[in-house]
Amino acid sequence: MLLRRLAAEFLGTGVLLATVVGSGIMGVALSGGNDGIALLANAGATAGILYVLITVLGPISGAHFNPAVTIALRWRGELRTAEAIAYMLAQVIAAIGGVLLAHAMFDQPLLQPGTHARTGAAQRLSEGVATAGLLLTILLGLRARPAAIPALVASYIFAAYWFTASTAFANPAVTVARALTQTFAGIRPDDVPGFVMAQLLGTAVALVVASVLGERTIDPGEASS
Amino acid sequence: MLLRRLAAEFLGTGVLLATVVGSGIMGVALSGGNDGIALLANAGATAGILYVLITVLGPISGAHFNPAVTIALRWRGELRTAEAIAYMLAQVIAAIGGVLLAHAMFDQPLLQPGTHARTGAAQRLSEGVATAGLLLTILLGLRARPAAIPALVASYIFAAYWFTASTAFANPAVTVARALTQTFAGIRPDDVPGFVMAQLLGTAVALVVASVLGERTIDPGEASS
Amino acid sequence: MLLRRLAAEFLGTGVLLATVVGSGIMGVALSGGNDGIALLANAGATAGILYVLITVLGPISGAHFNPAVTIALRWRGELRTAEAIAYMLAQVIAAIGGVLLAHAMFDQPLLQPGTHARTGAAQRLSEGVATAGLLLTILLGLRARPAAIPALVASYIFAAYWFTASTAFANPAVTVARALTQTFAGIRPDDVPGFVMAQLLGTAVALVVASVLGERTIDPGEASS
Amino acid sequence: MLLRRLAAEFLGTGVLLATVVGSGIMGVALSGGNDGIALLANAGATAGILYVLITVLGPISGAHFNPAVTIALRWRGELRTAEAIAYMLAQVIAAIGGVLLAHAMFDQPLLQPGTHARTGAAQRLSEGVATAGLLLTILLGLRARPAAIPALVASYIFAAYWFTASTAFANPAVTVARALTQTFAGIRPDDVPGFVMAQLLGTAVALVVASVLGERTIDPGEASS
Repeated sequence: MLLRRLAAEFLGTGVLLATVVGSGIMGVALSGGNDGIALLANAGATAGILYVLITVLGPISGAHFNPAVTIALRWRGELRTAEAIAYMLAQVIAAIGGVLLAHAMFDQPLLQPGTHARTGAAQRLSEGVATAGLLLTILLGLRARPAAIPALVASYIFAAYWFTASTAFANPAVTVARALTQTFAGIRPDDVPGFVMAQLLGTAVALVVASVLGERTIDPGEASS
Repeated sequence: MLLRRLAAEFLGTGVLLATVVGSGIMGVALSGGNDGIALLANAGATAGILYVLITVLGPISGAHFNPAVTIALRWRGELRTAEAIAYMLAQVIAAIGGVLLAHAMFDQPLLQPGTHARTGAAQRLSEGVATAGLLLTILLGLRARPAAIPALVASYIFAAYWFTASTAFANPAVTVARALTQTFAGIRPDDVPGFVMAQLLGTAVALVVASVLGERTIDPGEASS
Repeated sequence: MLLRRLAAEFLGTGVLLATVVGSGIMGVALSGGNDGIALLANAGATAGILYVLITVLGPISGAHFNPAVTIALRWRGELRTAEAIAYMLAQVIAAIGGVLLAHAMFDQPLLQPGTHARTGAAQRLSEGVATAGLLLTILLGLRARPAAIPALVASYIFAAYWFTASTAFANPAVTVARALTQTFAGIRPDDVPGFVMAQLLGTAVALVVASVLGERTIDPGEASS
Repeated sequence: MLLRRLAAEFLGTGVLLATVVGSGIMGVALSGGNDGIALLANAGATAGILYVLITVLGPISGAHFNPAVTIALRWRGELRTAEAIAYMLAQVIAAIGGVLLAHAMFDQPLLQPGTHARTGAAQRLSEGVATAGLLLTILLGLRARPAAIPALVASYIFAAYWFTASTAFANPAVTVARALTQTFAGIRPDDVPGFVMAQLLGTAVALVVASVLGERTIDPGEASS
């Protein structure tokens, strides 16, 4: 059954990237140079597709679509090391495929080494915060209200596109794949390692914070609201 | 009772088209030439009305509003051939009626043969992807969380308006009807067959993918999230 | 207990109008002449507050906030004539109060006879369609999924602001009150009777359509999705 | 266990402020001088993060993130005075920390005494109305549908950003912290006391109105919708 789970990870991550890159291209094409409108469209489309993908594929693979999520859940023992590696490979390959699909739908060169510089401490801090927030949304959300995970992740990512200086990549597979486009969502290949490092650090921080916050309380009054 | 179901398909498809075309007209009229704002409004209004129509009419007719959906569900044996044909006729007639209603509400000529060229391989690929995605949203969603279908379809369509180069018609009845307007949402009649072919191909792909992904798993661990 | 219900209708209708008018003023003030952005804000704010008001006040008064809704529910025998009249009076007075509150919050003259011309057959057709749609959303929604009524009405109104040429007043109390503002949401007093007539006609149409669509089916297969 | 609850209040209030300030900076940076687009982004991001924070942290601390909420719930006896004071201290310190984090992510000076004048009776009326509305949303929402509190607060705040002239600070800790930024969301320190007074007055009004509206009805018909 691992194959079916990998297929779900592949489909979900691919569609996610096609949406991130495609809606960025469309947003820029239509908004007459106003990147605020483009990012509203980009964030809204990404949130919409995340809600869909996590709802319909979650029961099959868990709907990680993100090596940071896979690593965190591996850390907590929810999947085996071999499974985690297979998940991450499927995610990276699918993410690249999703970028190519977006390029094909918009009649653009399939491969475009990214040129959008995203570097410096503030950008990396943004990625660390964005990834820690995403992981906390998932880890605390799984405890508080598992059925709401699709809406939680979608809402979080919409917000994080805006409240971080890096527009919240928050996903190493997404980061690698976005180095293959020169469009709105792109990133310069040289800046990928810094982003991925910050994302992994954010993942570690989230695991610690979730563990501090997550011990079941024994005060019955706290569960009331 | 078929008549009542057809009435629901008619009402739903008509209101859907009046919304798609009407909100496109309003979006262009108000956004001062910035098509990004117009498409945000168009996508938001379409998502809003889809959530409503599928919720309130779903219990009556299943809320297909789309020959591609009717064909897919016929394929899976959920309605008879005669019913499917009646559904599709109701959808096409209602879609045209919805376009006329939008024109009437905005005081425009009722019939306007479309002039918006939408052709080429990239546009057709977009329609194939958009329709496959819509069908997978419905087919996998029916299995994962049937009560969420209205929100899933609404969220998917919002995203697909932006991540495809064709703004995701994803519906043969919608495509035919939108050939009758020269406004924002229009399409040149000559380009309709290419769109419909791509949509049917996307439907077939979705049926295959859903069947591959859809066999019930026997690994109990997978259902946990 | 009628008094408490009237208080809920009063509070809800007042806040609704303060939101419709206030968010219109803010939208125009910030969007630099681009009415598309102003209407996105206006529609989003109205949808947001409707979701809140119907959720929290629905259990108290039914959350009509609209004489058309009160008339329809009186027609179906869900409240008495005297109650219906009291509801409608509370709604109209509160609607006017809400407009004054919006003016006060934005430091504007409290009373401003409306100057925004909204007349002609297309505008009235728009109001008839908008109101019929709103009533059908409520009447069919109460049968299909009562717990979703707040989200249904909010989503419908967001869409109807955009798909009708009149921006969907769809409410006689709202229409009367909006004749007291010269801001974005205003209407010329002379145009009020035509709007209200169209709204009442739309209400009647919705009652007929809901009754045709609403008979309980005996085909068990129809309830499956 | 109080420490864990304080940690949740700290995390939630900090992330809330980082989102309010960060998305304001991003909105202004991208929207080319069109503050309508910036406020759409700012309101959407704030609503998104509120939905997440209240859902995942609510089971731990109650997710107040706001001294006005803590005071109201203390008034109703849902926490002790010492707890309430600890909550409010955590909220104020975290709010300031969140502003600093936003500045760091956007590579700005960490401390920037606010310069945005927000004064006069209309602004204070706006804050009173905004806070009363927020408290009523929570107090009536807890009775009507507690599981919907995250969506209710998010929807309310989105609307209130637009329907008040002050963009609805509605939170004394938020107000104090926003006096430390010169960006979009800032406020002049001199204007803080007037805002906080209005917010506390609004809180008192909400407690009275909720108590009038909130007595359980004995008319069984009222609970039907």
